Amino acid sequence: MAPSLAEIVGRFGGRLVGDGTARVARIATLAHADADTISFLANPRYRAQLAQTRAAAVILDEAHAEHSPVACIVTDEPYLYFARVAQWLHPPAPCHPGRHASAICETERIAPSAAIGPGAYIGPDAVIGERVSIGAGCYVGAGAVIGVDTRLAPRSTVMDGCRVGARAIMHSGAVVGADGFGFARRQDGEWLKIPQIGRVRIGDDVEVGANTTIDRGAIEDTVIGDGVKLDNQIQIGHNVIIGAHTAIAGCVGIAGSARIGRRCTLGGGAIVLGHLAIADDVHISAGTLVARSIREAGQYTGTVPSLPHREWRRHFAHLRRLDHLATRLRALEKPGTKHANTED
Amino acid sequence: MAPSLAEIVGRFGGRLVGDGTARVARIATLAHADADTISFLANPRYRAQLAQTRAAAVILDEAHAEHSPVACIVTDEPYLYFARVAQWLHPPAPCHPGRHASAICETERIAPSAAIGPGAYIGPDAVIGERVSIGAGCYVGAGAVIGVDTRLAPRSTVMDGCRVGARAIMHSGAVVGADGFGFARRQDGEWLKIPQIGRVRIGDDVEVGANTTIDRGAIEDTVIGDGVKLDNQIQIGHNVIIGAHTAIAGCVGIAGSARIGRRCTLGGGAIVLGHLAIADDVHISAGTLVARSIREAGQYTGTVPSLPHREWRRHFAHLRRLDHLATRLRALEKPGTKHANTED
Amino acid sequence: MAPSLAEIVGRFGGRLVGDGTARVARIATLAHADADTISFLANPRYRAQLAQTRAAAVILDEAHAEHSPVACIVTDEPYLYFARVAQWLHPPAPCHPGRHASAICETERIAPSAAIGPGAYIGPDAVIGERVSIGAGCYVGAGAVIGVDTRLAPRSTVMDGCRVGARAIMHSGAVVGADGFGFARRQDGEWLKIPQIGRVRIGDDVEVGANTTIDRGAIEDTVIGDGVKLDNQIQIGHNVIIGAHTAIAGCVGIAGSARIGRRCTLGGGAIVLGHLAIADDVHISAGTLVARSIREAGQYTGTVPSLPHREWRRHFAHLRRLDHLATRLRALEKPGTKHANTED
Repeated sequence: MAPSLAEIVGRFGGRLVGDGTARVARIATLAHADADTISFLANPRYRAQLAQTRAAAVILDEAHAEHSPVACIVTDEPYLYFARVAQWLHPPAPCHPGRHASAICETERIAPSAAIGPGAYIGPDAVIGERVSIGAGCYVGAGAVIGVDTRLAPRSTVMDGCRVGARAIMHSGAVVGADGFGFARRQDGEWLKIPQIGRVRIGDDVEVGANTTIDRGAIEDTVIGDGVKLDNQIQIGHNVIIGAHTAIAGCVGIAGSARIGRRCTLGGGAIVLGHLAIADDVHISAGTLVARSIREAGQYTGTVPSLPHREWRRHFAHLRRLDHLATRLRALEKPGTKHANTED
Repeated sequence: MAPSLAEIVGRFGGRLVGDGTARVARIATLAHADADTISFLANPRYRAQLAQTRAAAVILDEAHAEHSPVACIVTDEPYLYFARVAQWLHPPAPCHPGRHASAICETERIAPSAAIGPGAYIGPDAVIGERVSIGAGCYVGAGAVIGVDTRLAPRSTVMDGCRVGARAIMHSGAVVGADGFGFARRQDGEWLKIPQIGRVRIGDDVEVGANTTIDRGAIEDTVIGDGVKLDNQIQIGHNVIIGAHTAIAGCVGIAGSARIGRRCTLGGGAIVLGHLAIADDVHISAGTLVARSIREAGQYTGTVPSLPHREWRRHFAHLRRLDHLATRLRALEKPGTKHANTED
Repeated sequence: MAPSLAEIVGRFGGRLVGDGTARVARIATLAHADADTISFLANPRYRAQLAQTRAAAVILDEAHAEHSPVACIVTDEPYLYFARVAQWLHPPAPCHPGRHASAICETERIAPSAAIGPGAYIGPDAVIGERVSIGAGCYVGAGAVIGVDTRLAPRSTVMDGCRVGARAIMHSGAVVGADGFGFARRQDGEWLKIPQIGRVRIGDDVEVGANTTIDRGAIEDTVIGDGVKLDNQIQIGHNVIIGAHTAIAGCVGIAGSARIGRRCTLGGGAIVLGHLAIADDVHISAGTLVARSIREAGQYTGTVPSLPHREWRRHFAHLRRLDHLATRLRALEKPGTKHANTED
């Protein structure tokens, strides 16, 4: 039976306002909730929807409690509380132990509680931990190690020798351990490949998004710390080191040997150049190029405003001659200097 | 037998100039055409190639008709006309009904006219429509629905519960319905995963490029409208809504809960932040970051000019002190104010 | 037995300083080397690590030879020398000829020395050269041609009719030959697909990164020259032509019909618009948008500096009114003109 509000508060804390016997089976947004659901208000942008909600209950903070038209659970951190309730109401699909007949397993070291999906391949000497789920069509290379309770979604790849910690989630199309991009240039312009003999080591509780790629190290390893969350379509170059609990949004590229600190966030489409270091607790805005090391915590931005195209043309043409503009300004500032500008 | 020009004009309209009995088997560019081919002139950039073409006929507009050295079909919209002729001369490979012996189908609901390729997996309760083609190594999750005449190229993925409309094309490596990037942050910096229980709903006549990813909604659905065209390597976050007939070029990233209007175009590498809205008929230039809602139709741009590196260094250094520059200008404008600039 | 330093110098040249009988089994970084390894010093950034190294020998240039605490091999090009030694000490895993029982091969034209992995699919009339390795779960379409000694990592895709040269490496998730993004727009905003009937032709010694996509040509072919190196997550549009020995970093997007010269480099996240040409020996900085043809060799840049967020806000607000600023400056320069600025 679906849990009652009283059970939820008993389990997760918070102050209940209203009827504790009401039962909630699912989560819902304020706008689309019904009497079987519990909703939440965390982003003030959605405050106006509170008055109309039909949820059985709403998770919210003290300031909004009196405005709730329905039962509510009051907490200092509504979003975090909601996450816990959501995880409880919507647990991941259970892992059914066993190997599909079409899977090809060349290792003996697969835990009996692990599930290996149709057409998956597990290479020699790979180690698959307890309750691991390897989706259909996945590739786990020779000697790779997948920690307990980790789930690989269908068609994800972990190349030879790479290690993934416990409770990780890897989404479809993710590729861990392809060769890093390492070449030496000859005088004539041809490139000579440097063998990429390092591995990728991924910590516990990491999530790797769909079609994200993490290259193996050139000599030593590429390292992804515990609790790191990577969105889709991210590229992480060889020998990058990412500190624990850093979260990276989609389409970010991180070049080789960059070191990112702990608890950082990188916004979508950001680019981080190679061989530099970013301190702990740094937040990079979406679309920002990081070309130098950042030694102090804080937010960093390097984007340009978007404008109606005609306005943009008018203003941004000046970027091509800012130096000239500055020179003219300096000339005007010099008393007694006559400045004749003929260029524009 | 290949169709004659008269048959083409009979079918698609336009005014024929020249011999209607000539037959064309294939399309060709002006520069590489031969006597079996029909070509077109739509982009004025290629006008100079018209005089030399060896095509049997050229599709072009009234203004260029007199310059054609060969037969031509005159129409107001040469590129659209060309598209229709090209589709007729080069239809998609036919779909051969049946399931490859190596495919694994856990559903009963596969139309008899559908084709399921080698090593493909179709999950329980999935619905595969008439004349659908599921390529080799595809994954279609439990309860997913694939509309009639849709084609999934090899190694594409549609996760559990997602819906794809009719006549859609999904290219290799595309991933529809991976988890959205949703986490609540604890005080200590750790992230708690929000279960992503929404789905992806894709309309009719949609094309999804190679390695493009469309995340499932957090609670409600991510929605891709009818006729939307997505190029390769695009990332679409959870709960994004894209209006009908919008076209998006490669490497674009759209963050969660963004709403894009109808008939928009987004240029390559553009980034759209989350929780904002873009009106109908908006055109975003390549490489532009959209950080605020756009309420009016039109073109929007936010890029910087690229320059020879030395020039760039000279000009762009000033971006770090534009405010200072503006302050000095303001000082000069104040009559009687003496300004002593010592900084640069 | 591992080779001695004397054998290495005998094979690759250079001047040996120290005991030629010492043997090295592996490469290592200066910081983590031990007595079985050979290291190198190429990037001056790591010079300080030379004094502490425990390598058996270090590859370096004349200027650093006297500072080596261990044996060394002196050469003008330490990185290139290192690449050669690394390739010799760490050759690619050998290719074991034969077809896995689960592979599906619909062509007769597979060389006996080729290796076809588990679950791979090879279409009708495809040609697989000598010593080619096709990884698990790869898709090679009808009529595709894979040149001798080429390796396709697991789960990579080469679509129908495309050609890959000799000694190429394609990493997991790469997709060669998906449809280009070609549509004609109707008056009502709907898009009509242009059949993409060209192919992709890839030269010899090319490397294609994980999840990189290269679209087939619309009518003619997309062409990747000999020795081109492509990192991960790159998108290359239809009919792009890339000259020999050009190297492109991760997350780059190149729009349709762009022509890139020989020996160019493109930094991570760069975007190149369509229908333009870039000359030989051009170097595009990371994050730069190329919107016009570049006719002269050299480095080109178009990025903005990233700043602490507050500073960025102060300076970059002025970008929206640069034209106004320039106008005011011009007014000040006109002798006798009185300027009253009321805007900011």
